[in-house]
Amino acid sequence: MSAIPVFDDVLAAAARIAAHAQVTPVRRSRSLDALAGCELYFKCENLQRAGAFKFRGACNAVWSLDDETAARGVLTHSSGNHGAALALAAKTRGIPAHVVVPEGAVRSKMAAIEAFGATLHVCAPTFAAREATAERLRQETGARLVHPYHDPAVIAGQGTAAMELLKEIGELDIVMTPVGGGGLISGTAIATRGLAPNARVIGAEPSGAPDAWESLRDGERPTEMTANTICDGLRGIIGAMNFDLMRQYGVEVLLADDDEIRRAMRLMWERLKLLVEPSSATVLAAVLRNPDRFAGRRVGLVLSGGNVDLDDLPL
Amino acid sequence: MSAIPVFDDVLAAAARIAAHAQVTPVRRSRSLDALAGCELYFKCENLQRAGAFKFRGACNAVWSLDDETAARGVLTHSSGNHGAALALAAKTRGIPAHVVVPEGAVRSKMAAIEAFGATLHVCAPTFAAREATAERLRQETGARLVHPYHDPAVIAGQGTAAMELLKEIGELDIVMTPVGGGGLISGTAIATRGLAPNARVIGAEPSGAPDAWESLRDGERPTEMTANTICDGLRGIIGAMNFDLMRQYGVEVLLADDDEIRRAMRLMWERLKLLVEPSSATVLAAVLRNPDRFAGRRVGLVLSGGNVDLDDLPL
Repeated sequence: MSAIPVFDDVLAAAARIAAHAQVTPVRRSRSLDALAGCELYFKCENLQRAGAFKFRGACNAVWSLDDETAARGVLTHSSGNHGAALALAAKTRGIPAHVVVPEGAVRSKMAAIEAFGATLHVCAPTFAAREATAERLRQETGARLVHPYHDPAVIAGQGTAAMELLKEIGELDIVMTPVGGGGLISGTAIATRGLAPNARVIGAEPSGAPDAWESLRDGERPTEMTANTICDGLRGIIGAMNFDLMRQYGVEVLLADDDEIRRAMRLMWERLKLLVEPSSATVLAAVLRNPDRFAGRRVGLVLSGGNVDLDDLPL
Repeated sequence: MSAIPVFDDVLAAAARIAAHAQVTPVRRSRSLDALAGCELYFKCENLQRAGAFKFRGACNAVWSLDDETAARGVLTHSSGNHGAALALAAKTRGIPAHVVVPEGAVRSKMAAIEAFGATLHVCAPTFAAREATAERLRQETGARLVHPYHDPAVIAGQGTAAMELLKEIGELDIVMTPVGGGGLISGTAIATRGLAPNARVIGAEPSGAPDAWESLRDGERPTEMTANTICDGLRGIIGAMNFDLMRQYGVEVLLADDDEIRRAMRLMWERLKLLVEPSSATVLAAVLRNPDRFAGRRVGLVLSGGNVDLDDLPL
């Protein structure tokens, strides 16, 4: 594993996780193509194990550890999907997992973490509390911290989704993913450069958490942000390594506001019959907001996850 | 086309609809297998065109007509999915479609019918009004009535879903479908006998609309029924031809009540990340209600559709 992940690391990740991760399907919709005026290829990471692309990076990180390190377990603080993914990844290797989650995290995600056999540690909903709790656990258990996105093994693992998409569909004009901390978009940029160097890589970010968009505009990362968006998976600040990779690979970011994201999510439920969480809908929302940018193009969209809290629905 | 459909008619239907219908995917879930104690293979007809298996039968019926008959168009009365399916099937052949729908039908289904270019005729929500409106339209337009289930071409078309499932998965111990008017279950029985003669065929029916279950118990069809179930696609009375085929092929029916169906639907949303309508969840509900019947078996479940009215959800 390089300090900064490169294409060979994505290839190695794909081999490492092959026995554990799903090769997720690519879905299409005639009516969404007509609505968007382009060809849309939806890579269904909501159908990935633990319900999100996060399992790819977590699984690569867990299986990259030497046996002695692995035996002490792994540890993370996560708003949800990465926590569940790391819990399941640890289970595939038979090692302990500790997950620090803020009070108020989505219930279905916390239940999933416990169902995968990890130990849940609930802390106050501040970044400082999460860091402090994680550090205490690290000292107590010797577990290895696996950061949700600022980690080369995680980034390389996330890149395997775009790799599968490009191998299945062939050349695409544009590959898009949601942008939160930047693990998925930076891994996607690396994979796409290796397999389809002429394709553009575009991230989609909620207007209510526009840190990556602002970082590219300003040339530097913010140190703090008050996120205000329904996309619970995209409220983190872009990571340093991730930001560097986005600039190195010429990634662009487009914004979409929550109303647009909600409408796109509804369209995806209705037309694709797929349960996707709001974060997943940022990509379609950004396409529909910028029709001229996408007209007639072949566009791959990595759907990040499907972990909707069904307690909020009248089922 | 035989008067009573046989296996060769299912084979012919598969060839006839191949250019128009989707080969839908088969999905699995480790956690649902663990919960049910058996191997579940979900045939995703919610991903069929127009969102339900109904497109198979409608498409076979439309493309079975000679050119002169077809040119006068097709006509049906339907609570929703068959209407949309027939509208889309007519569109694939470039012929008119007339759809009689009762007041109060699911909004998203009516919108789909119109979006496919059919003419919608809303009538009072009684069976008599639907029949009378359809008959008047038939006389006015010369359109061919395509019944939702009491039609050999429709039955043969519906059988192609189980045919694909068995061809993809190989031998199954049990094949299940929801039971409404009986088009899907009788077509499935014919296809299964032809491809996997040792497999049992089991229908799942809501306890609040138990006409097929009661018909098999009593040896005769009821003439009327007051349906009380959330499964809007399963409120019709079992057709005469369909009932005969169910008896001829030894089909069994299991019941599930609405609470069990609702719970099964929620599990499918959560674990499969698939939007399915309540009717689709009857099959899993029946499995979970009768664990001893299914323990250790390989069970194929045809999911009927995914046309949920999203206006009812807080999206």
